[in-house]
Amino acid sequence: MLFLRLKLVILCGCCLLASAFNVIAQSKNSKIASIENQASLSSTAQTLALMPFPAELSLKEGKFRLATSSAIQIQGNPHQRLYSAANRFLRSVGNNTGLHFGQKHLTPQDTVLLPSIFVNCKRAGKVEFGENESYALTITPEKITIQAETDIGAIRGLSTLAQLVTSDADGYYIPVLVVNDKPRFPWRGLMLDVARHFFSVDIVKRQLDLLEAVKMNVLHLHLSDDQGFRLESKLFPKLHEMGSDGQYFTQEEMRGIIRYADERGIRIIPEFDLPGHSTSWFIGYPEFSSGSTATFGGPYKLERRFGARTNPVMNPIKEETYTFLDGFFKEMCELFPDEYFHIGGDENNGRQWAANPDIQAYMKANNLPTKEALQNYFNKRLLGILTKNNKKMMGWDEIFVEGVPKSIMIQSWQGKEALYKAARQGYTALLSHGYYIDLNQSTEFHYLNEPLPDSVKLSSVEAKLIAGGEATMWSEWVDKDILDSRIWPRTAAIAERLWSKSGQNNVVDMYRRLDAISMLLEEKGSTHERNVPVLLRRLVQSPQIPFPNESDVKPLQNLIEVLETVKEYKRGQLLGTQNYSTFLPLTSIPDVVRPDSRTARHFRATMKRYLQTRTNPTLAEASEADKAVLIRHLQLWKDNHTPFVRLLETAQRLRDLEEHSLLLSMLSQVSLDALSMLENNIPATAQWKEITMLLILRAKQPRAFTEIMIIPAVEDLAKAVSGK
Amino acid sequence: MLFLRLKLVILCGCCLLASAFNVIAQSKNSKIASIENQASLSSTAQTLALMPFPAELSLKEGKFRLATSSAIQIQGNPHQRLYSAANRFLRSVGNNTGLHFGQKHLTPQDTVLLPSIFVNCKRAGKVEFGENESYALTITPEKITIQAETDIGAIRGLSTLAQLVTSDADGYYIPVLVVNDKPRFPWRGLMLDVARHFFSVDIVKRQLDLLEAVKMNVLHLHLSDDQGFRLESKLFPKLHEMGSDGQYFTQEEMRGIIRYADERGIRIIPEFDLPGHSTSWFIGYPEFSSGSTATFGGPYKLERRFGARTNPVMNPIKEETYTFLDGFFKEMCELFPDEYFHIGGDENNGRQWAANPDIQAYMKANNLPTKEALQNYFNKRLLGILTKNNKKMMGWDEIFVEGVPKSIMIQSWQGKEALYKAARQGYTALLSHGYYIDLNQSTEFHYLNEPLPDSVKLSSVEAKLIAGGEATMWSEWVDKDILDSRIWPRTAAIAERLWSKSGQNNVVDMYRRLDAISMLLEEKGSTHERNVPVLLRRLVQSPQIPFPNESDVKPLQNLIEVLETVKEYKRGQLLGTQNYSTFLPLTSIPDVVRPDSRTARHFRATMKRYLQTRTNPTLAEASEADKAVLIRHLQLWKDNHTPFVRLLETAQRLRDLEEHSLLLSMLSQVSLDALSMLENNIPATAQWKEITMLLILRAKQPRAFTEIMIIPAVEDLAKAVSGK
Repeated sequence: MLFLRLKLVILCGCCLLASAFNVIAQSKNSKIASIENQASLSSTAQTLALMPFPAELSLKEGKFRLATSSAIQIQGNPHQRLYSAANRFLRSVGNNTGLHFGQKHLTPQDTVLLPSIFVNCKRAGKVEFGENESYALTITPEKITIQAETDIGAIRGLSTLAQLVTSDADGYYIPVLVVNDKPRFPWRGLMLDVARHFFSVDIVKRQLDLLEAVKMNVLHLHLSDDQGFRLESKLFPKLHEMGSDGQYFTQEEMRGIIRYADERGIRIIPEFDLPGHSTSWFIGYPEFSSGSTATFGGPYKLERRFGARTNPVMNPIKEETYTFLDGFFKEMCELFPDEYFHIGGDENNGRQWAANPDIQAYMKANNLPTKEALQNYFNKRLLGILTKNNKKMMGWDEIFVEGVPKSIMIQSWQGKEALYKAARQGYTALLSHGYYIDLNQSTEFHYLNEPLPDSVKLSSVEAKLIAGGEATMWSEWVDKDILDSRIWPRTAAIAERLWSKSGQNNVVDMYRRLDAISMLLEEKGSTHERNVPVLLRRLVQSPQIPFPNESDVKPLQNLIEVLETVKEYKRGQLLGTQNYSTFLPLTSIPDVVRPDSRTARHFRATMKRYLQTRTNPTLAEASEADKAVLIRHLQLWKDNHTPFVRLLETAQRLRDLEEHSLLLSMLSQVSLDALSMLENNIPATAQWKEITMLLILRAKQPRAFTEIMIIPAVEDLAKAVSGK
Repeated sequence: MLFLRLKLVILCGCCLLASAFNVIAQSKNSKIASIENQASLSSTAQTLALMPFPAELSLKEGKFRLATSSAIQIQGNPHQRLYSAANRFLRSVGNNTGLHFGQKHLTPQDTVLLPSIFVNCKRAGKVEFGENESYALTITPEKITIQAETDIGAIRGLSTLAQLVTSDADGYYIPVLVVNDKPRFPWRGLMLDVARHFFSVDIVKRQLDLLEAVKMNVLHLHLSDDQGFRLESKLFPKLHEMGSDGQYFTQEEMRGIIRYADERGIRIIPEFDLPGHSTSWFIGYPEFSSGSTATFGGPYKLERRFGARTNPVMNPIKEETYTFLDGFFKEMCELFPDEYFHIGGDENNGRQWAANPDIQAYMKANNLPTKEALQNYFNKRLLGILTKNNKKMMGWDEIFVEGVPKSIMIQSWQGKEALYKAARQGYTALLSHGYYIDLNQSTEFHYLNEPLPDSVKLSSVEAKLIAGGEATMWSEWVDKDILDSRIWPRTAAIAERLWSKSGQNNVVDMYRRLDAISMLLEEKGSTHERNVPVLLRRLVQSPQIPFPNESDVKPLQNLIEVLETVKEYKRGQLLGTQNYSTFLPLTSIPDVVRPDSRTARHFRATMKRYLQTRTNPTLAEASEADKAVLIRHLQLWKDNHTPFVRLLETAQRLRDLEEHSLLLSMLSQVSLDALSMLENNIPATAQWKEITMLLILRAKQPRAFTEIMIIPAVEDLAKAVSGK
């Protein structure tokens, strides 16, 4: 309409110019009315994008208007960290809305004129296991109140409040509502492996910002493994100096991380994996390994390959080992304030023990018939050291053996049965099995991994021993550029699983909210979206395309958007032992591709819905819309192969994808044919069926360590057109 | 062609399926031949994307093939930092090419089997002013040799080598050539203001990575100002504790930054701005201010507004001030190893001095008639303290007054005349005027800012006193999300100005190379490209568009791609004093918009070329191609307004852009008309001219603190069609 006007201007001369500018004012007014309508529609619980969803929420009529005059008043007996959280809240909401708040930087000394956001807590919280994190949030049109037992609960309330900020034509507001909220499990964490690939302080701090946004309260750092020892030891400096390629945290850096976590109500759990996974310790201190030669099996070198096939293991029969560990753990127990200390304990293959005659003799002499028995002896000595330093021991499944004291915490990676077994015997336990976010599984898969499904019969006392869970980010396949894309946004769904009620498990609604949370996480610094174009440009760049623009990258982008990296441990198996190593560049196709393809997921869901509704006359319109979406996608993919092949002329790193591109194109062609057959009630020919079956079979093979994720939709369609 | 084949498959059945897959193999072979041709074309000096361009380069025939077996051997007498640089080189080239090098992590202890890259230096360099940074780089098909006096020169050679990696159909290679290179100026730096906005350690370290890539050798940190004191003082902890809102570097962090810089051959220059720009000092220590009341004009608060209008200034007549500064500078001189120490010295308005009767009496008694004379007295005392600590004093123009000793370094921000005046009087001086990258000027503007143009008559001795220059990143308008987009890629062109020959000043070729360098900088971690979509999505997000995708963002993107933020100090003037402050959210349109719009620049250049060549029959083809580009852009902008207006219905933060969008659309319409008139030899009507003139006039006004950057092209076109 504006362009008709524009044409008029050009035809009729400058006398109309002024009125063309008036269009702006007019169109503004009409728009405001229409937006009002949309906005009132949007103020329903279905459109709230909260994650984790609160325990209780009731939505009312009305809006609290955010304005530059909105100001926070902190009341009660808070810890200093609540001021820090309030300032972060102001800055973050300011950045998202563009509101330049009059309230600049809040300190306990400030008196606040006309506050409208009241944050009240009864006492300073302690950043420790089991602390009260509950809060109540009340929004009225005039004011916002957060009421909590501790400032940590109040911080959780601020995270909810930040997710509630929304907009209409009049500006930004928070819907009037009441929330009563508390976590279901007290231990909700992320384990980050900084040993296989090291991540800098800022990357770790960024994870803490993101964990806070989804109310997680533990960051567990896997600080040592065969590939690296990542923390300064002042007592035994050869650990980090010789075991890290120079990539480690200084103790002051670690104190900074702990402080940063504390400000967000997040605990830092250190893990030093022992007695196996310990090659990096022995570069500087081979004498504590179980090697039996004069050089103790050394000189040791940092392990460059991955996989739990390494032999080096602590020597459990030497008193010197325990003197060393006594000093080391004392130093570390003083550095880390949390009462839990993780000693790993997993995957010791026992070969060095078997090959060492002294150790074999010791086992015989002391009635330790198996490597498990010997490791249990070692663990007990470690337990003694930790107990002396006022710490509770924590470890992976393997530390859970007969007779180990009830104070320990077991982290279950092998399966839920181990978890329940521990609880039934009175041990506290944590679920990580099913939360292995390094395995490229879907958000749905992790989301539905319920720690306490109805089918499990535990007494309420036993159930209470299930402390929660941790997403585990093992870092064989991630470096700084792609780390966030493996953690986020999927971990937000795990955060909800551990915080919200077990009945909060509608997958469709979870995915709807995940989109908004994904945006929020990026705004808070996550790079899971923003780094993708950088990686794509790098794959496309060549002397012919020195600075790839969007359209240069598009054919690759269209293709990778429906790909996922092979799941579980398949990539390492396909790659082979020698190449599965620390310095493998993680800038290739399976690295750029992200877990849980949003495009493929939407396509599969749309296909399912279309096939269910297409013969239902009352849903004809929705079904037509779905069909249009399907056709648009299929057409895009069908036509994508030609430009993709053109790209291959210069972008040599993409060649492994050529067959995937062709197959995607072919699958799209047969799907378009099938849709047309369905439409016209023409049954599929035997020939069509055979070709399609062969195509699907061929397309299912992984290439470039990736898989085409729309195949289930094509299979559904093929069944439908074949009358199955 | 593949699709014809695909159609065949579907028509003729599965017997053809196998041959369809064979298409892949066939097309690969034919492609390889054609790429060979392209690749040999590309191996010319015109396609090398080096920046800064080397002093001497001669390109030969042939290629050194990069392979997983390529390995580096370090020879001579290097410093440990060369090993670190070699490892960074291996990782970076690995990431860019996907090559998984057999050489993992290089240390002095390793023996390298079959090395093919030899890096040789005669002695360990010192990271200090004037150190030898020259190197020679020789590529043959069999081996690469870097030969340098110091390891710092060798590191510069590795930066060149990294920029030479390119590809053809057979893989990655480096063209055979010989480079002899050394810098023109010994001081090539970036000043980063961490006082107005604070930047974390990793952001600073990232700048060091990027500076290394373009061979800059100084990072100057502006550590204190009215808005913040950003470094821990153990002696006077109230400086950072009360003067920073908790945002400062610990000394250990600063040592880490210095170490990181040293590994890259980069010097860290600390600046503590005195006697003015010093409000942040007085929160904790009001007694050293020049306030004359019992509370010394305090209590002081951190300045939240920007602009050099603040009064607080050090008290230069109290001996206690010098006792305090003696202790403080001793502490800082021990922390920072460089021989130069920057004391600021700029923009003291003298009001506190004028209002303090004691100071006025002192000035009279000591024959110090002006504030400049008093400041000079203060500077001399400071010089004494710095000299005692074995440092050379450095400051902005204002420290250059009669009688100051020749050992000082003057950094010129006011203009080149000040620079030459200093040199003529025998002072060493540094150019920053014209390198103020916070003022949103074009790369070309900074690139052509030659420190020693032919027109300036300096003796060779005087010319030698011009030590180089520094790009200055004042941080009133930048926070962590947009910092890189203000520094990069423009600073790469300044790096070339300071490294390369003065005759290296072809702007077209600079921009061609800048594109490739921009990619390289992003790969090294810069966020100047990758953060833009995040910021755009944030501006577009609404309850109706919770997760904006590319097409949601497109109308905004099309528009902002031709906008630039108003230049120089205009934004602050337009915004007004009260709003020009520390906590203004920097997430709005003028923040998302980047300096030196690439799209607008290309459009302007294309228009110029088209208008010059359109009547030249020998260039008809090129001219037609240019016209097609112009029409494609104009059509896009003309049609962009309707979807942009639709976006405005939900994205309220974009409303200030509506008129820009309409005007861009209108300008595009009249330009399309003009192109058509030119084509058909129809002269412009008086009406068309008047409308166009009015449109241009109106379009030139800034809106949302931004300007439309294609207007000069429309003006050129209007002139052409008006027969001027």
